[in-house]
Amino acid sequence: MVGIDLAGKLIVFEGLDASGKSTQAKLLARRLDEAGFDVVSTREPGGTPIAERMRSVLLEKEHHALLPFSELLLFMVSRAQNTHEVILPALRADRTVVASRYRLSSMAYQGYGRGLDLDLVRRLNETATSGTVADLTFLIDVPAEYTIRRKADRGDRIEIEAIDFHRRVRQGFLELTEGDPSVRVLDGTESIDRIHEAVAKHLGL
Amino acid sequence: MVGIDLAGKLIVFEGLDASGKSTQAKLLARRLDEAGFDVVSTREPGGTPIAERMRSVLLEKEHHALLPFSELLLFMVSRAQNTHEVILPALRADRTVVASRYRLSSMAYQGYGRGLDLDLVRRLNETATSGTVADLTFLIDVPAEYTIRRKADRGDRIEIEAIDFHRRVRQGFLELTEGDPSVRVLDGTESIDRIHEAVAKHLGL
Repeated sequence: MVGIDLAGKLIVFEGLDASGKSTQAKLLARRLDEAGFDVVSTREPGGTPIAERMRSVLLEKEHHALLPFSELLLFMVSRAQNTHEVILPALRADRTVVASRYRLSSMAYQGYGRGLDLDLVRRLNETATSGTVADLTFLIDVPAEYTIRRKADRGDRIEIEAIDFHRRVRQGFLELTEGDPSVRVLDGTESIDRIHEAVAKHLGL
Repeated sequence: MVGIDLAGKLIVFEGLDASGKSTQAKLLARRLDEAGFDVVSTREPGGTPIAERMRSVLLEKEHHALLPFSELLLFMVSRAQNTHEVILPALRADRTVVASRYRLSSMAYQGYGRGLDLDLVRRLNETATSGTVADLTFLIDVPAEYTIRRKADRGDRIEIEAIDFHRRVRQGFLELTEGDPSVRVLDGTESIDRIHEAVAKHLGL
């Protein structure tokens, strides 16, 4: 993929919590910027006033009786607003968008993880994004135990069912992307630098 | 319908903005209470902590670039939480629930009014409510001009496209309920007392 034109392209990092997605997204955005690209970085949930409101409800979910279905919809509202207010205008202006999480996360977390109907998730994704898909996805793959340990190190609350849940989500990420030429699976247990170099090499940077 | 057992039943008022739904819901709740029923009143959006958060975003929508799709999802989150936290527990305890707006409003407003896919709205309604439907619906029917005038009297902001939009919504309410024996259409241009008496008589109160 050396020499790919990255102007007007959407590059997405996906993976479990604490897999290193955001770190890799930041490193890539900086490298693209240094290479002269006009870069826009986004992360989910959030990025617009309404999306940030959704984010704050999602982050408080321990305090509420947030239903898995409601959780799905809050992510979709965030995605819809972020896509139409930030991502699509940037792509139309030939900027390079680097996103942490996008459509695949809802399929893996709410579909495989929470057991919501995959077809409904797919349909909501399609409508929320008006059909926008990642041009290139880097899936940072780590075992469920790894994300749990990292979350515990950060002081995050760990739910009893966390291991099984994250195993299902990981399986979702892997199954959903299998054989997809637009997805590159990277071993998230490697060092930050090594993963970054693999990303950069893949993009011909 | 004289003598209907109203314990464990969901009674919904539907109609355009300012058609008198909330007033009629309040009058009925009071009358049911006086008749010895254990009544729970709800209105949408709102009714639980998360649903109230959705309400506040919806009410501020003039300040934001809220997409019609996002608007639909915010109503659905409110409905899902309100159904599972308030309505279903009340019905299971044989209480009588009087609601202002429910599934039909999303079909009429977001489907007919905003032009979103009716099948998607129907599917979200079904999931949000876990299949809960009104046992009895009173549709307070008023012309689009009537709701616009009442909203103007209240000092609400009136959008340019308001008349056409409300005409489509009214048409939706009427088409969607046509021939449905669980729906009673009432003329909302009649007096408050007269409408209330028609409701009470229909319920055998």
